[in-house]
Amino acid sequence: MKTPTPLSRRTFLNTLGASAITLPALTDVLGRPITTAGNQDRKLGIALVGLGSYSKNQLAPALQQTKHCRLAGIVTGTPAKAEEWMQKYNIPKANVYEYKTFDRIADNKDIDVIYVVLPNSMHAEFVIRAAQAGKHVICEKPMAITEKDCQSMIDACKKANKQLAIGYRLHYEPFTKEVMRLGQEKVFGQVKFIESSDAFRIGDPTQWRMKKSMAGGGPLMDVGIYAVQGARYVTGEEPVSVTAQFSPKTEPQKFKDVEETLFWQFRFPSGAVSNSTTSYTAGVERLYASCEKGWFELSPAFGYGPLKGRTSKGPIEQPVVNHQAMHMDGVCKDLLDGKTLPGHITGEEGKRDVRLLQAIYRAAETGKTISL
Amino acid sequence: MKTPTPLSRRTFLNTLGASAITLPALTDVLGRPITTAGNQDRKLGIALVGLGSYSKNQLAPALQQTKHCRLAGIVTGTPAKAEEWMQKYNIPKANVYEYKTFDRIADNKDIDVIYVVLPNSMHAEFVIRAAQAGKHVICEKPMAITEKDCQSMIDACKKANKQLAIGYRLHYEPFTKEVMRLGQEKVFGQVKFIESSDAFRIGDPTQWRMKKSMAGGGPLMDVGIYAVQGARYVTGEEPVSVTAQFSPKTEPQKFKDVEETLFWQFRFPSGAVSNSTTSYTAGVERLYASCEKGWFELSPAFGYGPLKGRTSKGPIEQPVVNHQAMHMDGVCKDLLDGKTLPGHITGEEGKRDVRLLQAIYRAAETGKTISL
Repeated sequence: MKTPTPLSRRTFLNTLGASAITLPALTDVLGRPITTAGNQDRKLGIALVGLGSYSKNQLAPALQQTKHCRLAGIVTGTPAKAEEWMQKYNIPKANVYEYKTFDRIADNKDIDVIYVVLPNSMHAEFVIRAAQAGKHVICEKPMAITEKDCQSMIDACKKANKQLAIGYRLHYEPFTKEVMRLGQEKVFGQVKFIESSDAFRIGDPTQWRMKKSMAGGGPLMDVGIYAVQGARYVTGEEPVSVTAQFSPKTEPQKFKDVEETLFWQFRFPSGAVSNSTTSYTAGVERLYASCEKGWFELSPAFGYGPLKGRTSKGPIEQPVVNHQAMHMDGVCKDLLDGKTLPGHITGEEGKRDVRLLQAIYRAAETGKTISL
Repeated sequence: MKTPTPLSRRTFLNTLGASAITLPALTDVLGRPITTAGNQDRKLGIALVGLGSYSKNQLAPALQQTKHCRLAGIVTGTPAKAEEWMQKYNIPKANVYEYKTFDRIADNKDIDVIYVVLPNSMHAEFVIRAAQAGKHVICEKPMAITEKDCQSMIDACKKANKQLAIGYRLHYEPFTKEVMRLGQEKVFGQVKFIESSDAFRIGDPTQWRMKKSMAGGGPLMDVGIYAVQGARYVTGEEPVSVTAQFSPKTEPQKFKDVEETLFWQFRFPSGAVSNSTTSYTAGVERLYASCEKGWFELSPAFGYGPLKGRTSKGPIEQPVVNHQAMHMDGVCKDLLDGKTLPGHITGEEGKRDVRLLQAIYRAAETGKTISL
């Protein structure tokens, strides 16, 4: 990557007494030549596709706090929601799309990034359409239901020369970054065992998360993916095999389409092993690592915060942040700076997880150890 | 059970201003008629069989704090240990036995209870010999290596009309009793999911715990049994099926005889499920229960204390006690009072656990769900 004359610009900024120095690229995301001041002020316009609970309660409020992006548009199939959001967030009518008119967003200079917040089964279609509209894309997790879809999404973004991020907000979250460091830098020695579980008692049984055709599965697709991520980012390794077990359904009518509770065990190349639980009927949220010379733990570990952590030496102290704001700002800052997004939040990472989710299901269905 | 005129005795004691009232039985463990004062003072004489680490570091110190029993004798194959213990604990030579002379303990009026603290494979022989010597018996966990041995031990004690307790100290421990109450009385609603794990990184690889012939297995037999107990006493239920997985050995030379790490999952009649880990290579010690309306947790949950606990409503506050002293006093108080020991610490309970441990191994070996 070309890094033009950083020293001279740093020196210039220092003379202004800037205490937190940012090094903007010399062109913005659209390739326009920019001044340092101009880029520092510029916010990428984000359009949210799908105005469900996560958009409404997390992303839109977070976008009121972001420095490098702003809520610029919405895509929804519900006119009443469009009205409500336009008023609440001062969104011009020209930046409001329906699903069928969505592709016209290509012509909208206000929109730089499309954030796909739809049911899992719709991710592939809308990520591909967003890329074809010439926009960068953020896609909620899980990236898709199949690896094949993930690859199509990656290919479409590549072809459009646009970047694809997955909604892996925790990679920007300070407690999470600290346990990544503790594990990967072997601060307590080699990680030997991980208990990584994410589960909650689901409400409304009619929601799309309970439909296999839309969600691709049950709690594993929804929150279990965090437990998969946790075991991976604490070790910094990719699992080499997996075993898994469905637990019998206690509410078969409610869970006629997806699993109720699922356990799985990963083995990593270093010999580290993990044991995990996900469920839509019980709650647990923990990332615990036992190492050769101590342990560390986050609990809560995966929710919207505040997360809490401790180690065998005492509490983990980190600032409490808005996860979604940190994530979107992190992604958009890199886009503004013309940088390639870090690998652990891209489509390739999303595909790795989807591959693991599918392997967990296969292990549970067959009762066999699945090599990865 | 005959309860002789409790009110009149209580009234009598109240007139003495006794703040902590005990209600002694009218005959002692040997059937001798006793006065209230006499029984209150009487301590049962315990002989420890096997002077390894648990006897040395836990039981003997605990017996300096007990109210209803005392360290009266020892049985050891190591003359140097005998000398050391006689001096340290003021044990008369007449109360010191070797394994081959052990049976003569039948004639020793100082010894009321034999506590078998030998390697697992020797439990059956010494419990049976203790019963045949006409003594009550406490046997360390796991009760034995096979169910058949457990039954022989139960039968021998029954035949001798002596009681058999297993070293289930936690049933007398306040934090543990509290989580039993929280789970069994459904204080947070029905228990839905339990994570119950006990594991540590073992030291000396030459110790008997690493030999299958003496231990009957690896960490499952040693500490995994606590995790089995935890899931059982939180639900108050017996599991109906189990799945289990050995994790591959990272130190095959060290663990050539026993498992290194093992996971298992129980299903209970209510629909509650548990996921557990035991290991000799990593550490974890937790009993977590997710219920319909909240959660509770102990961590540490199974060690010698102090245990720590919290619930979705706040910390669990309980007195910190000496587990071993509470256990031996609890057992000996019942023996002194002529009471039948509570079912959850007897040989029948020990046998139930051994049956489950064997089922876990079978599930891990076969990869199948084992019905219980």
